[in-house]
Amino acid sequence: MLDELAVVLFRPKFPENVGSAARACLNMGVDKLILVAPQNFDLDKARPLATAHAKHVLEGARIVDTLPEALEGFTAVFGTTARTGGWRKGIMSPSTLAGVIDERLRSGGRVAIVFGPEDKGLTNEETSLCSGLMTIPTSREGTSLNLAQAVVVVLYECFKKALDKPFTPGGPPEERPTTVQEQEALFANLQESLLAIDFLKDDNPDYWMLPVRRFFSKINLKRNEFNLLMGVCRQIQWFVRAHGPKGTQDR
Amino acid sequence: MLDELAVVLFRPKFPENVGSAARACLNMGVDKLILVAPQNFDLDKARPLATAHAKHVLEGARIVDTLPEALEGFTAVFGTTARTGGWRKGIMSPSTLAGVIDERLRSGGRVAIVFGPEDKGLTNEETSLCSGLMTIPTSREGTSLNLAQAVVVVLYECFKKALDKPFTPGGPPEERPTTVQEQEALFANLQESLLAIDFLKDDNPDYWMLPVRRFFSKINLKRNEFNLLMGVCRQIQWFVRAHGPKGTQDR
Repeated sequence: MLDELAVVLFRPKFPENVGSAARACLNMGVDKLILVAPQNFDLDKARPLATAHAKHVLEGARIVDTLPEALEGFTAVFGTTARTGGWRKGIMSPSTLAGVIDERLRSGGRVAIVFGPEDKGLTNEETSLCSGLMTIPTSREGTSLNLAQAVVVVLYECFKKALDKPFTPGGPPEERPTTVQEQEALFANLQESLLAIDFLKDDNPDYWMLPVRRFFSKINLKRNEFNLLMGVCRQIQWFVRAHGPKGTQDR
Repeated sequence: MLDELAVVLFRPKFPENVGSAARACLNMGVDKLILVAPQNFDLDKARPLATAHAKHVLEGARIVDTLPEALEGFTAVFGTTARTGGWRKGIMSPSTLAGVIDERLRSGGRVAIVFGPEDKGLTNEETSLCSGLMTIPTSREGTSLNLAQAVVVVLYECFKKALDKPFTPGGPPEERPTTVQEQEALFANLQESLLAIDFLKDDNPDYWMLPVRRFFSKINLKRNEFNLLMGVCRQIQWFVRAHGPKGTQDR
């Protein structure tokens, strides 16, 4: 059903939760599970929670060392967070996220949803790799959901959206969505270009890039648009090299 | 939040699931948990799954012998079932049920949702005591949800409905969308900037702008993003004036 949707568990702490998450995946039509550096992982502890039905989801889970490795080949990545304060703006509700994911999947995308470890959640380092963030509404008294419970709620919303298939009119095939790798290449190129024209401050360009990243992440960037933006960056850099002050030319 | 909503677990088999259900109740603003003849019940096995936060929900759970006893004083009772065949018609989805429950609660009702044992679910004897039945949509391959997972999905829908306004996660209010006038001002500014760095051909810039316009038009551009992009244009133009060739400076 949700063939091109994957659940990524980042450093999960309890194998039992991994088992429960595998079962939740199966319930909601997802069969791609990726574990990033799982802690204390033990298939024998995870298996009973997955039940016989979801054994193949659990045992077929890909285990990798780093999040970038896990995200290779995906066209959009969404992170889950319980922390909604600070700079974490534009955080989606599960049903909003499900709508966005549905759209991405229908346009041929491959989507990953990343869940952080039970105790700490995702840090800024991991969420910076995400195209968008989502949080599950909770009561004030109990803001922390069990990991597998968070998985089932989010997938349930995605499954509901996938169930109704509205009419999609014909027309020329859309350009394919860009991969996360292409998006990162574009961000690097944008950063370089905006530094070259002194739009970004030299002291902490990563920080000043955040609004730019946020802006381009919300767009389901297609390959032709990627080419367009890369072309603009190339031209800015060419211009600076050709005409800029000496110091800039050496950058 | 959902003060007059109660979760009734009918003959639950695993104390761990009771603990997880207690935690799910707390997450979704429900603090009334009723256990009907729990099997193998052991608070010590349930407690870790409830976590310290939901300890009071678990320990405050009322334990009774029969379902009629559990349902005393409620104004509406809804049962959950995975079996949707046969005579079990008019079974609601979780969101439909949540709407019905919301209405009942707002009109001063006291509502119970009954979940059956892990292996068998509710029998006709128990569902005959219910004002309505609900089932959670699942994939064909995995129709059986874990008990506490079923609890969290159903309560999540109720909690969403109970939040007066649709749930919007924390953070500053969204920026207003840009007007068509602002978008045109941005396009003019972008064209000027892209001409200045020779990205657009001088002979027919309007034509070469088309893909750029198309790209920015598909975005629901917000005011802060407009400001960001206008800032980039300003900087490009400043850079060209400061460092560009003579001819460009006069443009």
